[in-house]
Parts: sequence; C-alpha cells; structure tokens
Amino acid sequence: MTGSSFGEAFRITTFGESHGPEVGVVVDGVPAGLPLSEEDVKFELSFRRPGRRFVSGRREEDVPLVVSGLFEGRTTGAPVTIVVKNNDVISSLYSEVRYKPRPGHADLTYVFRYGFENWDYRGGGRASARETVGRVAAGAIAKKLLGLIGVTLAGYLRSLGEIESTGEFSFEEMLCSKYSPVRAADRKVEASYEELLKKAIIEGDSYGGVAEVIARGVPAGLGEPVFDKLKADLAKAVLSIPAVVGFEYGLGFKLARMRGSEANDEIVRKNGRLGWRRNVAGGIIGGISNGEDIVVRAAFKPTSSIRIPQRTVDLRTMEETTISVLGRHDPSVAVRGVAVVESMVALVLVDHAMRSSLIPRVKLTQDQAKVAEEMWRRYIEACRQGLSEESQ
Amino acid sequence: MTGSSFGEAFRITTFGESHGPEVGVVVDGVPAGLPLSEEDVKFELSFRRPGRRFVSGRREEDVPLVVSGLFEGRTTGAPVTIVVKNNDVISSLYSEVRYKPRPGHADLTYVFRYGFENWDYRGGGRASARETVGRVAAGAIAKKLLGLIGVTLAGYLRSLGEIESTGEFSFEEMLCSKYSPVRAADRKVEASYEELLKKAIIEGDSYGGVAEVIARGVPAGLGEPVFDKLKADLAKAVLSIPAVVGFEYGLGFKLARMRGSEANDEIVRKNGRLGWRRNVAGGIIGGISNGEDIVVRAAFKPTSSIRIPQRTVDLRTMEETTISVLGRHDPSVAVRGVAVVESMVALVLVDHAMRSSLIPRVKLTQDQAKVAEEMWRRYIEACRQGLSEESQ
Amino acid sequence: MTGSSFGEAFRITTFGESHGPEVGVVVDGVPAGLPLSEEDVKFELSFRRPGRRFVSGRREEDVPLVVSGLFEGRTTGAPVTIVVKNNDVISSLYSEVRYKPRPGHADLTYVFRYGFENWDYRGGGRASARETVGRVAAGAIAKKLLGLIGVTLAGYLRSLGEIESTGEFSFEEMLCSKYSPVRAADRKVEASYEELLKKAIIEGDSYGGVAEVIARGVPAGLGEPVFDKLKADLAKAVLSIPAVVGFEYGLGFKLARMRGSEANDEIVRKNGRLGWRRNVAGGIIGGISNGEDIVVRAAFKPTSSIRIPQRTVDLRTMEETTISVLGRHDPSVAVRGVAVVESMVALVLVDHAMRSSLIPRVKLTQDQAKVAEEMWRRYIEACRQGLSEESQ
Amino acid sequence: MTGSSFGEAFRITTFGESHGPEVGVVVDGVPAGLPLSEEDVKFELSFRRPGRRFVSGRREEDVPLVVSGLFEGRTTGAPVTIVVKNNDVISSLYSEVRYKPRPGHADLTYVFRYGFENWDYRGGGRASARETVGRVAAGAIAKKLLGLIGVTLAGYLRSLGEIESTGEFSFEEMLCSKYSPVRAADRKVEASYEELLKKAIIEGDSYGGVAEVIARGVPAGLGEPVFDKLKADLAKAVLSIPAVVGFEYGLGFKLARMRGSEANDEIVRKNGRLGWRRNVAGGIIGGISNGEDIVVRAAFKPTSSIRIPQRTVDLRTMEETTISVLGRHDPSVAVRGVAVVESMVALVLVDHAMRSSLIPRVKLTQDQAKVAEEMWRRYIEACRQGLSEESQ
Repeated sequence: MTGSSFGEAFRITTFGESHGPEVGVVVDGVPAGLPLSEEDVKFELSFRRPGRRFVSGRREEDVPLVVSGLFEGRTTGAPVTIVVKNNDVISSLYSEVRYKPRPGHADLTYVFRYGFENWDYRGGGRASARETVGRVAAGAIAKKLLGLIGVTLAGYLRSLGEIESTGEFSFEEMLCSKYSPVRAADRKVEASYEELLKKAIIEGDSYGGVAEVIARGVPAGLGEPVFDKLKADLAKAVLSIPAVVGFEYGLGFKLARMRGSEANDEIVRKNGRLGWRRNVAGGIIGGISNGEDIVVRAAFKPTSSIRIPQRTVDLRTMEETTISVLGRHDPSVAVRGVAVVESMVALVLVDHAMRSSLIPRVKLTQDQAKVAEEMWRRYIEACRQGLSEESQ
Repeated sequence: MTGSSFGEAFRITTFGESHGPEVGVVVDGVPAGLPLSEEDVKFELSFRRPGRRFVSGRREEDVPLVVSGLFEGRTTGAPVTIVVKNNDVISSLYSEVRYKPRPGHADLTYVFRYGFENWDYRGGGRASARETVGRVAAGAIAKKLLGLIGVTLAGYLRSLGEIESTGEFSFEEMLCSKYSPVRAADRKVEASYEELLKKAIIEGDSYGGVAEVIARGVPAGLGEPVFDKLKADLAKAVLSIPAVVGFEYGLGFKLARMRGSEANDEIVRKNGRLGWRRNVAGGIIGGISNGEDIVVRAAFKPTSSIRIPQRTVDLRTMEETTISVLGRHDPSVAVRGVAVVESMVALVLVDHAMRSSLIPRVKLTQDQAKVAEEMWRRYIEACRQGLSEESQ
Repeated sequence: MTGSSFGEAFRITTFGESHGPEVGVVVDGVPAGLPLSEEDVKFELSFRRPGRRFVSGRREEDVPLVVSGLFEGRTTGAPVTIVVKNNDVISSLYSEVRYKPRPGHADLTYVFRYGFENWDYRGGGRASARETVGRVAAGAIAKKLLGLIGVTLAGYLRSLGEIESTGEFSFEEMLCSKYSPVRAADRKVEASYEELLKKAIIEGDSYGGVAEVIARGVPAGLGEPVFDKLKADLAKAVLSIPAVVGFEYGLGFKLARMRGSEANDEIVRKNGRLGWRRNVAGGIIGGISNGEDIVVRAAFKPTSSIRIPQRTVDLRTMEETTISVLGRHDPSVAVRGVAVVESMVALVLVDHAMRSSLIPRVKLTQDQAKVAEEMWRRYIEACRQGLSEESQ
Repeated sequence: MTGSSFGEAFRITTFGESHGPEVGVVVDGVPAGLPLSEEDVKFELSFRRPGRRFVSGRREEDVPLVVSGLFEGRTTGAPVTIVVKNNDVISSLYSEVRYKPRPGHADLTYVFRYGFENWDYRGGGRASARETVGRVAAGAIAKKLLGLIGVTLAGYLRSLGEIESTGEFSFEEMLCSKYSPVRAADRKVEASYEELLKKAIIEGDSYGGVAEVIARGVPAGLGEPVFDKLKADLAKAVLSIPAVVGFEYGLGFKLARMRGSEANDEIVRKNGRLGWRRNVAGGIIGGISNGEDIVVRAAFKPTSSIRIPQRTVDLRTMEETTISVLGRHDPSVAVRGVAVVESMVALVLVDHAMRSSLIPRVKLTQDQAKVAEEMWRRYIEACRQGLSEESQ
C-alpha cells in the first residue's frame, strides 16, 4: 500500500502540491445514484478556505471541479475525481526556506526522506495543509452518504491556547460554529478566541488548540475488531492531519487518572433501547460504536510558521542561523483544522458503514437518493442558522 | 480488508479467543534468514503474562509454539505462525455475564454487532486482552529485526491514577522496568504504584494509567505521507489495543495549550548531524521520523471488570439490575498494557523500515543475521539489569 | 501487502509447510451466525486428499480442527482458524533434493529468492501443493455462504493429456465427478483417463490437464471495474494455484481466433429476464457477472516430480547431473487440482458477493442461517449421487 | 479495497470516462529522483493512440499533462498525476446505445450493477478502452524504473484471427513492432494482418487476436508466494484489460496436453549461472521469476462493436430488436491492446521489484537516476529502429 490513499470500501487518494497547478482527490467506492453537485462540495470547502479573517491570507476561491464519476447530476459508481486549481501562489516567499528548514515544519524531514535535490520546497509542497482540500472535498460526499443512515457531524474549536470552552452548548450550536470566524460553538468564548488570535497576529506568534467533533446518530455495531476498531481507524484518520499531535475519544486521557468505579458507564434503558447513562466512552466500547454520540478530540500544535525569528541551520553552510517565516499563515491551524477533522471522521464512518453494509456499496435506490438529498438540505439549513443576521 | 490483520510489509493476523483452545498469530512478511527460537518469543511474552503479582491471577505459562516458517533455527520467508495454548480457563465464572453485560466492557457492543446468539461470552471472547498474546509474540520478531538497524524500544508506566513519574530516569532504567512488578521506571514511584494497586485489589476497584514507549535509534525518514504518516500508523496501532482511549506523541496535548514560539523546536547541529534541540516533537515531524527518540503515550482506562457492584440491564428481562464482576482481573490493565504498546510500536516501526527498504523484505545476509542476533542478546542483557538481585 | 493472504472482504491467510507439524488457514471476514462443523470442512477436504487411487500415496487423513471463531456450532464473526496436522511425513526422501533442484519445481527459485541456507527443502516446503489444504478448507466456508444466494459450484477434469471431454453432460454429472477417481464428469472418458494415468505410473511419467469449473446461480452485477473485475480476480485466484499455467473463461483462447459477428453473443429475453443466448462469454461481460453460468478453465502442467531421470545441476559441485524423483506423487496434479480450482473460484465469488453486500458481512439472520444449512445439505446430496452403488 | 487501483508498492488509480472531460491516473509510490517528462509519457501513449491506420478513427492527440509529483524535471516522491483531455467526443453516436445494449459489450452488465438511471452510456463510459490511457501513462514510469535493473519489455501481436506469427524473429524485432501499423514483429505476417483488417473494415466485422509480451532481464527471485506469485499478479493485470479473455505464460495451455518428461525443463549451467535450457516455463517457476525471459500471452476477443447488425433487446419495450454499432471502432482491439498488455506487465514487474527492494521505494541516488535515463534513451532508440525509412 502506498501513503496517499485512505479507506477500504470508500477510498480516497489525494494528490497535488501547495504550489503545483492543482490539488485534488479521487474518491473510489462511491455508490451509483447519489445526487451530487459542485455546490455540495463547495459548501464544505468554504469552511477550510483561506482568505478569510483569522486564517491565512492566501486568496483561493477553492472552486471544485468534478471531472469524473458524475453523469446528469448523479454518481455513476465510477471514481469521483475532484480538482481545485491553485490560483494565488507566490513561490518567491519560499526562496529562503529552501536552505533554511523551518523549525516545526516538515522541511527537513522531507529532505531526509526524499533527498534535497528532489524536494519541492515551495509552500510546503506535499506537506502543506493545502493537501487537505482533497480530504474536505471527499468529506462532502461522505457526509451526504451518512445522511442516508441519519448521521450528522458537528465540530468546533474546543480550546485555543489556554482558553477552553467548558460551558454548555447544544449540538445545533456546534453545527453553527461553521460560521464563527474562530470556529467557536460558545458565543462567550468566541470573543476570547478572537482576542487571542489578534494578539498572535500582532506578535508574529501562533497558538495550538483542540478540535472536538461529535457524530450524532451513528448506529451501534460499527468497527471491525481487532485492528480496525472504530477508535483505531479514527485515531489514524485524525493523526494523518498536518499539525495534529494527539487523539482521544470520550473522556480520553482523563480516564487514565480515574478509578474503574468512576469510569465505567452504567448500562441503562433509554428511549426503549439499551444505552449508556453518561457516555464517558464517547460512543465506542470494545472498538465498536454503541449507539451514543461519538466524541473525538484532536490536539493541534501551534502553527509552525511564525514571524518571530527562530534558530535553524543553513543547509548550504551547515552553520546555525535564524529564520523569520514570512508568507501568509494562520495564527492557529486549529481553526481551519476543525473542518478537516470533521471530514476525516466522516470518511471513517462512511467507510465502516459501507464495510458493514449499512450504506450500499454499489448503488442507491431512488428512495435512498431522495433521503440523502433531503438530509443534506436539512444539514445545510442547520449550519446556516449560524450565519450572522447581517449575512443572512 | 478485514479487521484481524495489521501492517503492510510486515503483516500480522491474530486469531483465537480467551476461552478457546488457543490464541495465536500468523506473521507474514518475515524475511528469510532471521535466527529465531521459541525462547525469543517467550522472553517477550513473559512481560504480559498473567499469574504474577498485581496482574490477573489466571495461570497461564504462555509457552509459544512456532508451527510454521521456521527451519533449522532460521526463518524461511514463509509465514511464521505462533500459537499459545489456553490452559487455565474457568468459563463458569462467565455464566452471569451472558445476560448481564458488564459496564465498560465490549459485551453489549459485540451483541449489537454479531448478535446475541452468536456471541462467545466466555472470558470476553475475542474482545479479551488475551488476544494481545499474538501481538506480543509478533513483537518479538519485530524487535529482533529492528536490532538490525540499531533500534531499541523501552516502555514503562508513566502514570497510574493520579500518580505520575515526573522524575529523571534513563533509557536503561525504562528497559529495566520490565522486571518491576508495576512496570515503573522510577524506583521512587514504584512503591506508590504498588500501594495504589493493593488498595484497588482490596476495594475491588481498578485504576487507569498512561504507558510511555520510547524508540531509540530510529533512522530519519520513516513514514509515508500523507495518510501513512508514522504518527498516524502509530496512533492506529496503539488505539487498536483494548482499553486504550488516547494517544499522543512528543509533548502531545500539552502542545495544544502552547504558543508557536515555545512549541517549535530549534534545529541544531548535533554530533555532526542535524537534529532538534529539545525533541518536543517526539521524533516525528511532518509524519516522518527525524532521527530523534520517538516518544509515544497511550492512555489506558481503568480495568472495566471490578468487584464493586455496578448497574446494568438483564438481557432476558430487560430490567435494570447490578453486576459484581468476579473472575481474575488486573487492578490496572495499564501495567501489562505497557508490553502491548511496546509491541505495537515495534510492529509499526519494522513495517515502515521494510516499506522504506531499510530492513530487507526478502532475506537477510549471514552478516545481518549475526547483527540481529547480537543486538537481541544485548537487549535481553540490558533488560535483565532490572532483575532484583535475589532473582539474578 | 504480503503474499500469504487472499481476498478483501472474505480474506484467507494460509500457513504451514509440507513437512512441518501442520498446515492451516485463518479465514477472516466470516459473518457471525453461519452454522459450521468440522464435518463440513472435512467433506470438501476429502476431494483433495492424498492416499487414494491415482493420486499421491502420502497417507493423510486430513482431519480439520477448527481452533477459533466457532462457538456452539456457529461462527462468531471472529477469524475462523482451521488446522490439519501433517502425519505421514517422510523427509528422508528429500535428502537428494536439497542439492539437486528438480526440473519444473520451485526448488531453485526458492533458493534464488530466500537463500540456500534458509530453504526448507523437505517435501517442497511452502511450495508444496499441501499448502492448498488451507484453501480447500476455507472454500468449504465460502461454498456454504454462497448457498445463501443460490450459487453452486461444480468442477471436473475437462482434459487429461490429449484426451478431452467433449461430450454432453449435465451440471449434476459435473457435481458427481467428485466421486470419480479421475474427476471425470463423463463416464465415457473416465476409463480413458484411468488408462492414461496407469500408463504414467508405470512409465514414471506424468500428464497435464485442464480443470473446468462452473458456478451456477451467480447473480448479475458482481465484479468491481476496472481492476477488480470478476475475470481479473478469478485469473489471479486460479494462477495462484501450484502448477497452473493458463486461465480462460467462456470460449477463452478460441475467441482470439474468431470474428466479432461469430463471437458476440445475442442478448435475448430468457425466462422473463434479459440473458445471453449462447453464453460464449462464460458469464462475465465487462468484468461483471451477467447472470449466466460462470465458466472458467485452468491449465495444469504435468506433475513435475517424475521417476524418469532428468538433467539438473548439483548445487555443491555445480556439475550437471541427473535426478530421478522418488517420493509419492500424483501422476497428474490436475486430478486433485480440480478441488482447488473450485475452492479458489468459490473464494472469489463469496468475496465479491460480500463486497457488493449480497452476502452479509457482519452477521446472518436466523433465517439466512437456515437457508445456508439447507442448501449445503442439498449440495452434499447432489454430489453423493456420484458415489458408486457399492459405496453408497 | 476499491476497484480502481492496482499494485501494492507502485500503485495506480485510474479515473475518467470515455466522454467525460478527461481521463487520468494517479501513480503513488514513485520514488523521488526519477527524471520524468511529459515527452516520456507521450512516447508510450503514442502506441495506443487512436486516429491512426487500422485503429479507431477518434482523433485524440493524447497529450499528457503531469499535474503533480514532478518538480524541476524529477519526481518528488509525491503521487504523480497524469491527465489526458478528451477532445474528440461525439456523444450523439450513442443515443441508440442507451436503450439497445450492444452484444459483447459491458452496457447491460453496467446497467445491472449500477442501475439504468445512473449509467453513463456515452462511449462506453468507464468500460471504454479509453480508460487504459491511464495504464499506459503509468506504464511509461514503470518502464523507466525497470531500466534501473536492466529490464526491457517488448510486445507484439502474436496472432490475428487464424493467422499466427510462428516464424523466427528477434527481441529487437518485437521492440520495433511498435511502429508496425498492425503491431507485427514478423514482416511476413504483417501483410496478412493488414489484409485481414482491411477485410474486417469493409465487412463491418472484427477479429480477435493474441498479444505476446516478453520481459527481458528480469532478475531471479521476484514473486511472493503463495497468492502474490508473479504468475498470479500477471494474470490479474492482464485479465483486467478490456476484451482480454485468456492468459497463459510460457507454453501455457500447450503444457496441459504434454507429459512431464517433455514439459519439464532441464536445469543447466548457462553463462556462468544456473538456467533453464528451453524456457518452457516462460521465466516463472513456483510463481517466482527464474532469470529467464518472462513470456506472457493475452487472448483478446474480437472488438464487440461491429457494423453488421446483431440481435439485442430494446430496454424501453423489452422487445427483441437489432443494432448496427456505428461509432469509430478498431477492427481488432488486439492491435492497440499490445501496448496495454505491455504496460500492465511493466506495472506488475516494477511493483514486485519494489516489494523485493530491488528498485528503491523512497528515492533514487543520482547515479541511479542517470542509469534510468540512459536506459530509457536506449529503449526509445531500439524501438525507433522500427520506423520505416521514409519516416525516420
């Protein structure tokens, strides 16, 4: 197996570099009969798009083109290929980077692995977060398919630096966070997040953060013991995202400090079915979904590219030197990272739902197509509740 | 793909249930010419074996039999199959479990997934930690092969409940933790760990903990962007272990609270090569090993099986009831879990080293065989420094 | 991926060598709830078993033991492991082989690949046809599952040496060929086959042959363009069998000599559905099953082990020499090969039926379990019509 | 796994339909440092390009664009994506096909599998041989890498209809067949092939044929028992090609009619190494390459699209009717098929050479890059010996 593909039944292969002509994704395993438009994909891409407040100033419209697998508005069962052109590329900003690997960046490890002379140093090349365009585009298809079985995903920025969203907020508010410029689900912390990011921009520094994603409506029984447990595939999915350095689900690391009598969740009757009282397990027990909300968290390190000068080594002279990373960078990659985590979780869930035959692998019936379309409409509507009144 | 296999170039398939006749593993992709004995495997198995202090009282000698792939003391390139018989099985302890799913356990999710009537409820069946015997057996082969390129792994219990090992201790002390009954690398916390586990046993309760594994000597350049990054495959490997609920590498979740200027690690010249000053990144940048120590942590939840009564539902009557889990259980699965995390990390590293052609995929030369054998001897010796004087 | 596994959704991993303690298979992806017994597996194994007339005289009872994945007579969803002990091993017959690689055999290529010093030369080691025990054992499970969707497989020896079965015979007669000592479907050629094999035994020579397998009842729509076409996966399955040197389906190579106007099959209405008039395409068009009988043929070369002396080279002296292969060998591997081709075809079909969600991937309902059991009973009965009257 | 990808270490994913905007391929696993240009790819594509004599009249320049994985003329280790625009699309020719499935074509099986309403009927959609553009483009990279270890591939049309090339001709003549309009290696049969194809064009009929591909210089030891044998992976590769209905290697089906004493090849000393006297085994024994020429043959059925009216069923009325297939079709797909078989064989060989670490998986040294470039130059030169004098 090679490293650019992910998933078994629903399989994506991403390609393209930050400063190449385009980035894209081939999505194989999409059943025939799913209604799909470039608008659907664009909707999802808009939440990881640069060129907005508090994120990189690179001006990319991120207009997706579907170049295969679609016929008269429906998928055909053939691989769906989606490409997005790179329009606003300023490679000149990277001439210094070629010889001064940036601390915290993949520059030097790419040089180690692939050789200095083969390294596409422009804009981080393949290691750039721009590669995640393909993941989010594929995520749109995944989410549409998940609608079929009643699954909806919401993500938000759980914490930024030392600030954490500990208040109460609903699943609907998480959905609405899409339209928050700092991806906050909680209006109260939104202002603090904005404050912190402004400070980072002024100081030429950056902050880490934690993204949380909830999947609601996941049927019990997903996950393939013993290696393709749901938690294992989610962990891989999330850790494959640039800048992610940690993963947990449910109470996660907190459970490691607890006693069994506190940590075990009681099995109870709940709306006529069996359920868990507190969902400390984040929807997964024994690596298999248990019918409760799936709750995962991804720890993002601070953006590596900062203006504050840092020590590094000049590869020409092998002398120590410093670099101040210019270019157009996010004060916290975690903000746009939320959309990527959401997509990766969606990819894992649709893959497992197809592996367990809960979503058809070959084709949708006409009725299923309608359900998928209707659920997608409702999802967009729910998200758009987050639009500020002036924008609506 | 099906869920019982792991790895691409070095691929393991585990089989067997807790109360079936045997558990085992098929290891495919072992190059020919590796010297291997059942003793080698037994050495590693001895550190996850039950029947010792502070772990489950189930009496299993865990004697491994190699039934294929070995000829005159060397691997042949054919799949190596290792089986371990289940000798001390007391299924009668589980008659209550059949109808009263244990909170925190996979009982109910297995019933959801596979159907009540097909569920092997005895001893947790396939969900039992006994399945990890195969992983640790395969880990022995992985570690032997890693010796070829100078990689050594050490693991220890970083924290137990609220107690954390924050003191200073060497890599050698971590290796020696193998002979600590509570897997402590730090003599000072060892007593506190023991205390806590005794308390748990008395109270019929259990504790969570965090295992840390360090891989030393990993060459720079391992990891396949963008999905098979080293961090992604490690995360999947670690989360596939029963009871693990979180993963991080390097500073992990702490990085999410930091600023870029703190979190970025300076690139420096170090013993004639390029390196990182503080290794905050835990040996991996851009998903690729950077030549520094690889440092991963796994959060284990407390053992789910506790004597303290807990609420559950009787599957026959669908009435709420309570269960007090008898059977022979570890007061903290994290203790024996360290050996499993170590093995999973070794499996990922050997797989990536083979995928990058650093370890031969087909056969070892005679010289390589000698190096592997010599490095293994040294590894065992280093571990055995941890034997208490009376045992030596 | 490593070479000892086959299949995606229904995945087998074989292990063991000809003269090791056992051979076996791990079958992963078997849905829970399938009734299964060791008798079921034994039934299929009996048709590839040595120790009968016209096949190798090695005396193996081939009693299968199911050591995992089965609980109270039903599969649990966990991997099913089946082992068969090697009882009648006479390694002394192979001392000459160690230094004199047998023409036509894998001896020398194994030495090339894995190294002389790591080569298990006894009985062909891993290259021995004994490895196919695992395939046939797994094939029994596959066939049982295929019963669920009404698929039955029959195989027979289409030709032996220059003798070809060109007469008319029914699907039922093909099924009955299981009890023919030369695997003939046609009573008229049976005697000629026997004659030829007797001659081969006397002369110390061997013959090639062609096995044909028909799968009846395969639903239309199986196969995944463009690489996992049904014909492509069947070809791989069949060519992975020892001694197979050619594959074709439908009219196969004959089509290459024909004109389009002869070769194209007319689409017609047939029992209320769309069908093909002559099935020249062997049930597969565009790589996808079309609802007609699937017809595949495998060309077996003559058994390589013959008593007639042949030229080879002594690996010690590098001088040319001769070898007369003793040991107990089949006068034509094609006879027992039929059972292996059948099993490989069954494995491909069940894999594709599961990938297309026609057979459940996770668990069978009680009703499905009953159907599978009933169909299996009928299949055995149909085969047993081939038992000679005295044996019945 | 999904059906649009092929290969393990060197993995291609093709996408695009006959009448979509483009067809293409993502090639993952290309080591960094390989010199590569669009000219290299175009050279290979030119031998499967339509719009020439004796092949489809569709006018496609087939200009390849490399949109990822290339930087300053060298591969970077990132996936290499190659796209070819579809320029000469006349979908109106297919309005009849929508309701009248063509005999011998995938029309009806695609409808069965994916549903009538989701079927892209234009030009065969995904089932069109146009999909093979991506395979041949990837084949160019594969062949360049194979140059590194001294492997060269030559293919030619072994037979067309009843006419067979049984004369003697050299490997060099096979290479030169690239410039024969009927892909003949033998000047004597070239005229007969041309005659036959002219006849087919006039009569509105078509012919089948057999393509033979020879790989020279393949090192001994390639192939992974027991399922990923070289012969098995070659068979899958070849059978995945549209219109291929049979595969054999070495003497193939002829061996099934022979005796062991004839069929076994003698092991002899040959230029200082061990070899086989007659290479009846086509370079593969026990599924592993033995150092001799690898010889494979693919049986192509006649082009299904013929002008002669054939019976089919109208999907609207379910009444039987006839169709005369217009459009621009090859009188024998086998002619252009040779280039595709060559590419598929190259893909399998490079994949296995990388899996066995004979070709680097991560990066080439500067010296290796030079060797690959030089070998490629020689290969083109050798092929161009086949250019007629007037063209040179």
